[in-house]
Amino acid sequence: MTSLWRERPVGVVGLGLIGGSIGLDLGAMDLEVRALVHRQGTAERGCQRGLAHRASTDPAVLDGCGLVVLALPLDRLLDPPGALLEALPRDAVVTDVGSLKAAVLARWQGLHPRFVASHPMAGTEAAGVEAGQRHLFRGRPWVVTPAADTDPEALATVRSLAEALEARWLQCDPSAHDRAVALISHLPVLVSASLLLAVDRSGGAGAADPTLVRALASSGFADTTRVGGGNPELGVLMALHNRDALLQALACYRASLGEIEGCLRREDGPALQAELERSRELRPEFL
Amino acid sequence: MTSLWRERPVGVVGLGLIGGSIGLDLGAMDLEVRALVHRQGTAERGCQRGLAHRASTDPAVLDGCGLVVLALPLDRLLDPPGALLEALPRDAVVTDVGSLKAAVLARWQGLHPRFVASHPMAGTEAAGVEAGQRHLFRGRPWVVTPAADTDPEALATVRSLAEALEARWLQCDPSAHDRAVALISHLPVLVSASLLLAVDRSGGAGAADPTLVRALASSGFADTTRVGGGNPELGVLMALHNRDALLQALACYRASLGEIEGCLRREDGPALQAELERSRELRPEFL
Repeated sequence: MTSLWRERPVGVVGLGLIGGSIGLDLGAMDLEVRALVHRQGTAERGCQRGLAHRASTDPAVLDGCGLVVLALPLDRLLDPPGALLEALPRDAVVTDVGSLKAAVLARWQGLHPRFVASHPMAGTEAAGVEAGQRHLFRGRPWVVTPAADTDPEALATVRSLAEALEARWLQCDPSAHDRAVALISHLPVLVSASLLLAVDRSGGAGAADPTLVRALASSGFADTTRVGGGNPELGVLMALHNRDALLQALACYRASLGEIEGCLRREDGPALQAELERSRELRPEFL
Repeated sequence: MTSLWRERPVGVVGLGLIGGSIGLDLGAMDLEVRALVHRQGTAERGCQRGLAHRASTDPAVLDGCGLVVLALPLDRLLDPPGALLEALPRDAVVTDVGSLKAAVLARWQGLHPRFVASHPMAGTEAAGVEAGQRHLFRGRPWVVTPAADTDPEALATVRSLAEALEARWLQCDPSAHDRAVALISHLPVLVSASLLLAVDRSGGAGAADPTLVRALASSGFADTTRVGGGNPELGVLMALHNRDALLQALACYRASLGEIEGCLRREDGPALQAELERSRELRPEFL
């Protein structure tokens, strides 16, 4: 029953890292992949790279698809073009790959009867039609956040897709998902960006020599600031659409930083050591 | 004149990552390396690995050395054993590799007439007698922080050593060094440890599902928390001995984080975007 989607073409909307990688893997399984893209050049290059068998800027390319994956950036997912909505076959299972789930679910629940909200969590540094790669999802979490009225058969179809891509299936509440990513994805971006801004600020105040600070920064600084040097548009989108959970995460963060600062201020070596021992203990749980 | 040190044995006190790597490189230049170590087993293994020609737990091994490098952990450097002090040849140039400079200089200025405070900044994850490797210092900063009464000839000798090891020579004030490392080495440890503690704290409060949070953490979280999962003893030592500079760095950090949080609280997308754009711009300056 749940493998029926394999008997009809699969539609992919967007051929960036996520959409392109899905297309590549499905193509390798002899499934027919059809892609709806924004630009003609992307359509041509996508077919050339084997991301899809047919790719077009015309939404009619989705006709006859039994499963459609909306591999769109979050802003376009939250504000989908009317032509896309009209082109989605009413009997197809539709799923997305957006990195926030409550907002996406709220938007899409009324838009398509067989919509399933999901978030495959795979690397996001590369982008565009050249980024898609084989086995991107292998062993990575594929989080699905059904609502009370989500069609169970549609949910099973998305699970079958995730399993075909060798992802780890995880089912949870949309707000639980959003709170978790606030902590482990969005908070690190703000923490890391603040570190870069703090070092710059400190130079401006004349307290530290900016040239020296830059000359002495090593791999530890590079690692801690990596996510803070990422795409600003994406960062803003995530932050604003996950504002409440992120403010709550920031409150926890300020409390932890405040405790560490307190130890230092009181010159309390044993208490500081206990904090750093706890943090060393915690890290392997997240790897 | 400054290459005279090459004509006598070079002493290395401690055969960990830094001492062992110095010994290996110098041995490859046909210089005679003598090591003073804490345990007999280290002496044997150090010679076997080619870190030194002669290694001993007897300070007399340093007799006749023209240059001695104190490659000791910071706590032992700040509290040197009397037997070591007595064994240092009075006419030798003595330098250290400690990661803080004001405290080391304050301690050593009265202890040896030809002491030069220096800090070769190379990777510090590996430790012990197995850690030493060739070319560890190649292209890395070797910071030297002379005092007004530092012997200029001794300084030139240390520069000759750093150049022989292909390090980049950087000279600055000890407190400028300490302020810079507070920002780019010590602050990241606290920022990163606080992130791990915050995520844990948030789980405890019941706001986020601890299992989900751990399952969803990806490479971005791993990078941002790497230095926070490091050696707690070392972290405490650095923090307490560089307390003032680190408290100042923390104040800058809190200000930067507060501005970002303010943007989020006001839902001011353009201002948040400007902050994240600035942080993206800054990062390449530190790589």
